[in-house]
Amino acid sequence: MVTRNPELAHLKAGYLFPEIAKRRREFAAANPDAKIISLGVGDTTEPVSPHITAGLVAAAQGLGTREGYAGYQDEGQAALRQAISDVFYGGRFNVDEIIISDGAKSDIGRLQLLFGAATPIAVQNPTYPVYVDGSVAIGAAAEWDGNGYQGVTYLPCNAENDFFPDLNLIPEKSLIYFCSPNNPTGAVATREQLEQLVAAAIAKNCLIIFDAAYSEYVRDPELPKTIYEIPGAETCALEVNSFSKQIGFTGVRLGWTVAPKELTYADGTPINPDWHRVQVTVFNGASVLSQAGGKSALEPEGLKEMRATTDYYLGNAKLIKETLTSLGIESEGGVNSPYVWAKFPGRDSWEVFSEILEKCQLVTTPGAGFGSAGDSYVRFSAFGHREDVEEACNRLRKLYS
Amino acid sequence: MVTRNPELAHLKAGYLFPEIAKRRREFAAANPDAKIISLGVGDTTEPVSPHITAGLVAAAQGLGTREGYAGYQDEGQAALRQAISDVFYGGRFNVDEIIISDGAKSDIGRLQLLFGAATPIAVQNPTYPVYVDGSVAIGAAAEWDGNGYQGVTYLPCNAENDFFPDLNLIPEKSLIYFCSPNNPTGAVATREQLEQLVAAAIAKNCLIIFDAAYSEYVRDPELPKTIYEIPGAETCALEVNSFSKQIGFTGVRLGWTVAPKELTYADGTPINPDWHRVQVTVFNGASVLSQAGGKSALEPEGLKEMRATTDYYLGNAKLIKETLTSLGIESEGGVNSPYVWAKFPGRDSWEVFSEILEKCQLVTTPGAGFGSAGDSYVRFSAFGHREDVEEACNRLRKLYS
Repeated sequence: MVTRNPELAHLKAGYLFPEIAKRRREFAAANPDAKIISLGVGDTTEPVSPHITAGLVAAAQGLGTREGYAGYQDEGQAALRQAISDVFYGGRFNVDEIIISDGAKSDIGRLQLLFGAATPIAVQNPTYPVYVDGSVAIGAAAEWDGNGYQGVTYLPCNAENDFFPDLNLIPEKSLIYFCSPNNPTGAVATREQLEQLVAAAIAKNCLIIFDAAYSEYVRDPELPKTIYEIPGAETCALEVNSFSKQIGFTGVRLGWTVAPKELTYADGTPINPDWHRVQVTVFNGASVLSQAGGKSALEPEGLKEMRATTDYYLGNAKLIKETLTSLGIESEGGVNSPYVWAKFPGRDSWEVFSEILEKCQLVTTPGAGFGSAGDSYVRFSAFGHREDVEEACNRLRKLYS
Repeated sequence: MVTRNPELAHLKAGYLFPEIAKRRREFAAANPDAKIISLGVGDTTEPVSPHITAGLVAAAQGLGTREGYAGYQDEGQAALRQAISDVFYGGRFNVDEIIISDGAKSDIGRLQLLFGAATPIAVQNPTYPVYVDGSVAIGAAAEWDGNGYQGVTYLPCNAENDFFPDLNLIPEKSLIYFCSPNNPTGAVATREQLEQLVAAAIAKNCLIIFDAAYSEYVRDPELPKTIYEIPGAETCALEVNSFSKQIGFTGVRLGWTVAPKELTYADGTPINPDWHRVQVTVFNGASVLSQAGGKSALEPEGLKEMRATTDYYLGNAKLIKETLTSLGIESEGGVNSPYVWAKFPGRDSWEVFSEILEKCQLVTTPGAGFGSAGDSYVRFSAFGHREDVEEACNRLRKLYS
């Protein structure tokens, strides 16, 4: 038979969240009466809001008519791309600089095709696993050595450095994956920090892939919501974003990537046309239905609903963070972010995960799943029904007080 | 700045269909009064049928409620995967062997991650460009030499060999992309031909990626609709399929890939778990809305509508083929297939494309865009409104009679 891509053999067996789902299923099978609450995967739980739902419904009805029918969507509808530019970037990008996708995860997978196997990768540690796993699959990272993949530069982010990495560790001419508000730590980079990041990227001839999937959780007006608030970022950063967490579209699927026309490779070739080429070659556009929902979300009524949806989850995050604080458990995040990153000093994070699952019937995410720097942390997701979050907090109080 | 993936430099500049769209725009700009009809890109044009539309609408409405809300879809809903197994494969595959996608093109792009850069590629010539372009992007094919990419084995399919390739040309341990009903030639492989293909794949330790995106256009009960009608195929073939052309979902986005559990790589590793791993790593599931439409399509009422939709386009194909025949233009396809592959002996296909565009204001696809063996052919797509197809046929009669 044909040969297996040797890079795949380097991947550790389980993607993190399926592994957690498996442990949850096993626990549920052994404890059929358990009322399990999940604050594990960051999966939205609240209904899509009325104006956005109306947009989805109208588009679905329209598909049944000759006037409303639509076929291939290519790089996305110009009206949606313009609205994204206007709402999130003050209109500074033209539609050719924004390509609509089925979500950030898919775009991250495809972006790696632009740079290939020879470009070094730098990631925050802890980090969203997809940056690294996708890099392994295309050969930009090598074997797992017990702590991480060879060839990947891990940038520790922990309480000691205020969850912002030592930029001196970044290799020259590397691809830097940077997420703010951060998944999993919930840390939000300040303007000054992002200025340092952009300066480092320019000085070291690096490209930043900035993941802004949680940007709408930022409430502090001093904190940047996009890398393009930083002067010069358009020469050294792509930005990936998503409607998933902003309007509860994890199941609907819609995102976008900004590829400014100023960006070039080392040889001077512009990056933007390659991104178009990749997207029309191994992708065929986001669903016309999802795009209709996205357009509704960017209308005034939709923006109000987006704010209300993110307010709801921020309310959950506040409850979780306050509960942990009252129990003497230190945490990062939970403010301007839907994730709370709780520290259990000296403990193994899978062990804490199991303890919380067994004693509270509560699913979290063990920090080690996000990298070695997550070893003594557990991530609480604020995505859940309010009453479930309240109940989860009650159970945590019983366990740890 | 960072280095460009050197493989991307090998890709010819334009993906075929954006290039055609560009030429159409230029023609329209120069001829503002032209009533252009497109039989170019194979993009569906008829409204989604009522039962399937109702499924989409109900799902969209449901998202606005707590009961109907749904988040991440992972590898797809079990009910849809089971229905696909039941309707298209007589129930022989279990749900783990079928993964739902946002369409065949995306899956083809991701499938290449399983085999990497070192696995040789064999494609029919002419061929759907994505098989080759995606292979170039990951390094499984090298430079363009004027006729094709180095490292790709092109298998000529033409009138002389009844549009079925010489299987002796297939390299050992290669990935064979095979499409039937074929895009672009419209040829449908017979059972005997597919038996030969499977036997060759087994003898040469190859893996077939069988693209069955047009399977529902097969009306002749003697012709196979899936590679798995051939005994042994489950040991040597993956099958990619899509709802796009079957129910007009080109804009809605929904497809699937079958990865039978019997399939292994040369080292004995099973392929199916790798496919799951890739899909959950660089993809995040098909839209919950699209999946609802797919489920409706596989209910009895939906299946009747699927038949009516494909009947409509087959009616268009028949009109085009009969018109060409009446004009003395030989063609393949147009029966059991929505594509008519018309031969213009001794002529350059881009020149014929331009002639038809300028004189008939009709967009087609030049055969050379699908490979060197398409040089003197033009593809007519049957996807269009009936009255447009009739008008296109009238214009062709004026030009060529």
